[in-house]
Amino acid sequence: MSTNFSVPEPTPQLVKVAESAKEASISLGQSTNKQRCEALTEMANALNDNADEILKANVQDLERSEKEGLNKSLLSRLQLTKTKLKGCIDGVLKVSNLADPIGKRQLHRELNENLILERVTVPLGVLGVIFESRPDALIQIASLAVRSGNGALLKGGSEAKDTNQAIMDSLDKGLRKANVGSGALSLLTTRQESLGLLRLDKFVNLIIPRGSNELVQFIQENTRIPVLGHADGICHLYVDNSVDIDKAISIALDSKIQYPAACNAIETLLIHEDIAEMFLKKGLPIFSSEGVTLKGDTKSQALGVKNKADESDWSKEYLDLILSIKIVRNVNEAIEHIRKYSSRHTEAIVTEDKMVAEKFLSSVDSAGVYHNCSTRFADGFRYGFGAEVGISTQTLPPRGPVGLEGLVTYRYYLRGDGDLVKDFASGDRSFSHIDLPL
Amino acid sequence: MSTNFSVPEPTPQLVKVAESAKEASISLGQSTNKQRCEALTEMANALNDNADEILKANVQDLERSEKEGLNKSLLSRLQLTKTKLKGCIDGVLKVSNLADPIGKRQLHRELNENLILERVTVPLGVLGVIFESRPDALIQIASLAVRSGNGALLKGGSEAKDTNQAIMDSLDKGLRKANVGSGALSLLTTRQESLGLLRLDKFVNLIIPRGSNELVQFIQENTRIPVLGHADGICHLYVDNSVDIDKAISIALDSKIQYPAACNAIETLLIHEDIAEMFLKKGLPIFSSEGVTLKGDTKSQALGVKNKADESDWSKEYLDLILSIKIVRNVNEAIEHIRKYSSRHTEAIVTEDKMVAEKFLSSVDSAGVYHNCSTRFADGFRYGFGAEVGISTQTLPPRGPVGLEGLVTYRYYLRGDGDLVKDFASGDRSFSHIDLPL
Repeated sequence: MSTNFSVPEPTPQLVKVAESAKEASISLGQSTNKQRCEALTEMANALNDNADEILKANVQDLERSEKEGLNKSLLSRLQLTKTKLKGCIDGVLKVSNLADPIGKRQLHRELNENLILERVTVPLGVLGVIFESRPDALIQIASLAVRSGNGALLKGGSEAKDTNQAIMDSLDKGLRKANVGSGALSLLTTRQESLGLLRLDKFVNLIIPRGSNELVQFIQENTRIPVLGHADGICHLYVDNSVDIDKAISIALDSKIQYPAACNAIETLLIHEDIAEMFLKKGLPIFSSEGVTLKGDTKSQALGVKNKADESDWSKEYLDLILSIKIVRNVNEAIEHIRKYSSRHTEAIVTEDKMVAEKFLSSVDSAGVYHNCSTRFADGFRYGFGAEVGISTQTLPPRGPVGLEGLVTYRYYLRGDGDLVKDFASGDRSFSHIDLPL
Repeated sequence: MSTNFSVPEPTPQLVKVAESAKEASISLGQSTNKQRCEALTEMANALNDNADEILKANVQDLERSEKEGLNKSLLSRLQLTKTKLKGCIDGVLKVSNLADPIGKRQLHRELNENLILERVTVPLGVLGVIFESRPDALIQIASLAVRSGNGALLKGGSEAKDTNQAIMDSLDKGLRKANVGSGALSLLTTRQESLGLLRLDKFVNLIIPRGSNELVQFIQENTRIPVLGHADGICHLYVDNSVDIDKAISIALDSKIQYPAACNAIETLLIHEDIAEMFLKKGLPIFSSEGVTLKGDTKSQALGVKNKADESDWSKEYLDLILSIKIVRNVNEAIEHIRKYSSRHTEAIVTEDKMVAEKFLSSVDSAGVYHNCSTRFADGFRYGFGAEVGISTQTLPPRGPVGLEGLVTYRYYLRGDGDLVKDFASGDRSFSHIDLPL
């Protein structure tokens, strides 16, 4: 595919940047937990020391972007207040308090006397991070990268270029002070570079996109480097017939309105026909009082849903106070609908029937499948991971909310004393395969 | 990329086949361990019952392929003797004795009272398998797929088409008899179909190529579906200066000649300059008596290596009794050479200096890094996995030799009783994040 990409070859200059990030990431990857924690502390200190410069730079970005007519929601994402920056700096220190993901022994096995196999976690190498607007994303991802011993090439939105540069200067100052892996973090500034980044499969081991669905989808379709993330988040809630209506309504509401722009908010509500009338009779006024626009199939329109949902609604991520509603004959029809339209992020069922719940959980193959709770729980922090690198809707692991463990891989170490395969092939020796304590 | 692939869109007929394999794989994925074991037993029985038909079909394939001028090594791979078939059938039963990879709880955590998070292994869905010649590969992969609850679309070499068809008839007979996931295994017959397979990312979750480096590379470059495997296996052995020469020679020999066509055999030997003369003086006659052709850099040629190794040799997988030799100043130069030319499969160091060994192990980022043993140990069976799905040289897990766990993913289950995120956002409730027994 590399031959017929729609993205340009990386420039020699970009390749140089990637090579030196790779070089620096090797020493960072071999640093001790203590060194990496010190690096994060120094990064936080440097951000503190340079807070005024960073905020000044952010004001420049805001003024320029406003002149250039950047829309309000993007401007608010771009804005870095003193409080927001303080929060980011606290975040860096929190990351340093997370358990070290590196050097974890996952497997420890004797293959034969004095022939010992180990599987140990190691950093991935270099991350490629592409994020829009939010300068706080730069601080967060950079600290996660350093925590996990990875270098990173980071490309932010051009609207935030002054802020990002000021932040990166502080981060590198911190790394240099801690004297571990200085140069492992590098800021890309041009769109040309962020496209070239997608072709750096020799140097970049994982791409982390932070931005619109369009951005993520473009990246997924234009790189051979693994991408950690998801495009659409089309989540479903199915309300079964054996149900506590109030519980169902409150879960549906929370799943939709608690943060409508989130990927784990529901877009479609599936309702069992037996209780549809009761549910909507009680639910419609509540949804409307909460400002939720409902779009329904023919059956639900007959039960009072004002707007019509057409075929395209079932695969639409509204990211807004809009909810499509479909009435189904039973759990099987709900499962079929989900298989057809879900983005395999998170789906939930509300039912008091445990059998039906377990059928739903075993039949729906999304990263998260929930019973009697809000889909909004799909989040690395709520899962207790301490950090969230991203939420993956891929089938292969890491899947769902991904913490620091998504930024590491493993390596097999085998230590012997002159051991040869021919002796095992001949039968002179045989494998013991005794697991040893981790 | 899907828009500018060099491979054709799948035919509507192929899509139908994929859809029904997907459909059948869902019931297979929900079957119990007992059911899947029964299925494997029935598959083995059916292969036994139809052994004569299978062997007859194989004779047809052999005769036709011989007429068509298929070369000797491919003919021998194509041939399925009674003994070989017997071995395959035993293999199916062995696979049914492997631990069930499905339904393993990897995480069990209380987020709050009565809000319980689980992470449980589940099948991937449908595997796409492309293998050359060897009909035994069909039996092996099919049994691994069923063991792990996955469906599979399998495309064998056209030279083996009669044998593969006879085998597949038996396998499906077995599945039908066990009445679990009949139709989950499907044989593709045309090259057109195997190309179309690469575009079925909606139905196929993992591609497993079994064949030449060229085949694997073509697949890796022409599909967005994850590929489990590796193209080149360019493995290195570095002989340090503080070394037991006899140990070093025997490890070098085993790593090269025990099975030269294997991906984990070494292609390049790196020797510390201080002991190069001693090593070669003793080693050259041994290598030549074993029929190994050595190709050396200038320094090693000066020490008696007959043939010249040019730049291209450092990135060549000979798959033969040929070994390139380079003399290096120290372990650092060895590590640099490996970083530049390795396919990141398996590398080894021979040294009595533990410090140097640990430096090598921590600095070389290949799937396997060994100390004082043969690179030929890089193998799922030798690691004690009971089966080997493939060996991956990707950075992300699964990496290195991959057993059944490479054919599963996981799903998060969250069970509550009306739990809402807004209550945690407001501070009315807070996460306990208590890990429960697995």
